[in-house]
Amino acid sequence: MKLLEETIAKIEPQDMTVRAQAHNRLESLTMPYWALGRLLDLAEELAGMTRSLHPAVARKTIFTLAGDHGVVAEGVSKYPQEVTPQMVANFAAGGAGINALARQAGASVVVVDMGVAADLSELAASGRILSRRVGPGTKNMARGPAMSREEAICALENGIELALKAADAVDIFGTGEMGIGNTTPSSAIVAVFSGRPVGEVTGRGTGIEEEQFVHKVSVIERALQLNQPDPQDGLDVLAKVGGFEIGGIAGLILGAARLKKPVVIDGFISTAGALIASALCPTARQYMIAAHRSVEQGHRVALELLGKQPLLDLDLRLGEGTGAALAMNFVEAAFRVLTEVATFEEAMVSKAQ
Amino acid sequence: MKLLEETIAKIEPQDMTVRAQAHNRLESLTMPYWALGRLLDLAEELAGMTRSLHPAVARKTIFTLAGDHGVVAEGVSKYPQEVTPQMVANFAAGGAGINALARQAGASVVVVDMGVAADLSELAASGRILSRRVGPGTKNMARGPAMSREEAICALENGIELALKAADAVDIFGTGEMGIGNTTPSSAIVAVFSGRPVGEVTGRGTGIEEEQFVHKVSVIERALQLNQPDPQDGLDVLAKVGGFEIGGIAGLILGAARLKKPVVIDGFISTAGALIASALCPTARQYMIAAHRSVEQGHRVALELLGKQPLLDLDLRLGEGTGAALAMNFVEAAFRVLTEVATFEEAMVSKAQ
Repeated sequence: MKLLEETIAKIEPQDMTVRAQAHNRLESLTMPYWALGRLLDLAEELAGMTRSLHPAVARKTIFTLAGDHGVVAEGVSKYPQEVTPQMVANFAAGGAGINALARQAGASVVVVDMGVAADLSELAASGRILSRRVGPGTKNMARGPAMSREEAICALENGIELALKAADAVDIFGTGEMGIGNTTPSSAIVAVFSGRPVGEVTGRGTGIEEEQFVHKVSVIERALQLNQPDPQDGLDVLAKVGGFEIGGIAGLILGAARLKKPVVIDGFISTAGALIASALCPTARQYMIAAHRSVEQGHRVALELLGKQPLLDLDLRLGEGTGAALAMNFVEAAFRVLTEVATFEEAMVSKAQ
Repeated sequence: MKLLEETIAKIEPQDMTVRAQAHNRLESLTMPYWALGRLLDLAEELAGMTRSLHPAVARKTIFTLAGDHGVVAEGVSKYPQEVTPQMVANFAAGGAGINALARQAGASVVVVDMGVAADLSELAASGRILSRRVGPGTKNMARGPAMSREEAICALENGIELALKAADAVDIFGTGEMGIGNTTPSSAIVAVFSGRPVGEVTGRGTGIEEEQFVHKVSVIERALQLNQPDPQDGLDVLAKVGGFEIGGIAGLILGAARLKKPVVIDGFISTAGALIASALCPTARQYMIAAHRSVEQGHRVALELLGKQPLLDLDLRLGEGTGAALAMNFVEAAFRVLTEVATFEEAMVSKAQ
């Protein structure tokens, strides 16, 4: 609890002076006013986050956090739970979507076992994944809390530690996840914070059909009814209807914010983690960059709650950090516009009449 | 005319067999069905265009074509015409938006004088730009045709030659442009092909106010009234209400299509060029990738005419090829997904139940 409290206490808002300086520079670049639109908004944000007109962006790392979910016992997913460790092995071998897209973006991938319901000690011992296990998967939230309050704190602090330990090696953080069933707790989290009906914030996950979808909604409704998570208490929400990887993502975001470094939020599950982080420390939102709008219908609501407009809308619904990897190209692009484009004065170009 | 006719005759459709092979591979990747959405669509397109399951994408070049427009005499732009050569010099010096964003994407920029109303021979002699001049800017289309039919053919063939000469050095083409006033001919072109009222396909260009906007619409209406371009004849449209850089872009696209290589179409003006190319050879559309949806309201209509959904929507309105540069990251990302992600079988991951 100490690390969590200390981290939250150390999160400061963006620097408005540096933001204003960046804004002035961006307004005077050789282009019609704000003609690179949201790329310029992003450049301004970067300056405000990092307190620099020459923000560091070269070292990009995506943390792909894996965890299992007791609620899969209710039959909410199309895939068996064994896919979680199988995909972790796939990440470690470099053969998954996130590996390919991280390579494109020049980003590293750090795979973390936050609580997979399988023995991954061999992969951890070989150094190909990190082990920050909270437990062997959460409990079934349709029959009680997904985890204890202590476990929720542990998940958050494990995530914070991931960020703090990477402080000297990472300029831009990215979030990602893997966990069969994890759109179910994510929809529960979005329902709690938004107050919307579960059916409006629940989607097809990996691709379930109508009947299973109706069942999934009823399972989430039951979990909320039974556990009564308190939207004023982020820890309570995480403990009752969250997941270990979701808590880890929330912690990673808090850690990045404490370090005054940008963190690119991937899709629906990562955004559920961001909502937990935001509930614990609203100022942390100032360090979040929303990568994309996923196919999951709850994602739109979750992004609205965060007040974030995503950079991409490409019908992605994979997770792993794939959207974050794609969006990292734009973080670097924004940096380059801020630092490499000449002003009207520098380039001796005539201004508007 | 010979090169143009020969080029059009040599443009073949995508290879549906290779497309189907790519589709099969993409369906079997370790992810829920088509979970990378439009990135997978793009990967399939790439395979169909290039006839390869391992398409070449490493060498990316954006051709930024510059030209001036006689219609600026009517007061349709906020910037003076001298900005066209000034920005060409800025491109050559590496200080413009396109230079920064091309560097991010790992793309080269080739700047081409297609007909700027200024002497750029020094820049051309130094090798920093190419000279493919059709004339010293177009004529004022509000008082007669922008160019002769012969000049239109010349602009197109100059563009085709740019592509053909780069055949051995470029895997992915990108289009871009610079020309004060060039949203005016672009809106005229979109109005001709769509049959929509000019006011619906005209925007604020570099940022004109309401009064100047109303004037711009009336100038375009006058040009269409006077010249009566024939939407069934792409050459006629280009000659009467087009531009040298717009013709060059159309030619570049035809050349890329002839080479069976993808061409990333930038924003509004590039899409006007793409409409000319499409009118001359509808099959050429199969090699076009729409980069982004610009702020210019006519762009949405133009993209619909082409049947293209853009990859990005970031409120860009700069041109130069900046949107194409950003989108090239996704072309490479799509390639990597096609070639680097393991299938369920390869990775020994369980399938859906």
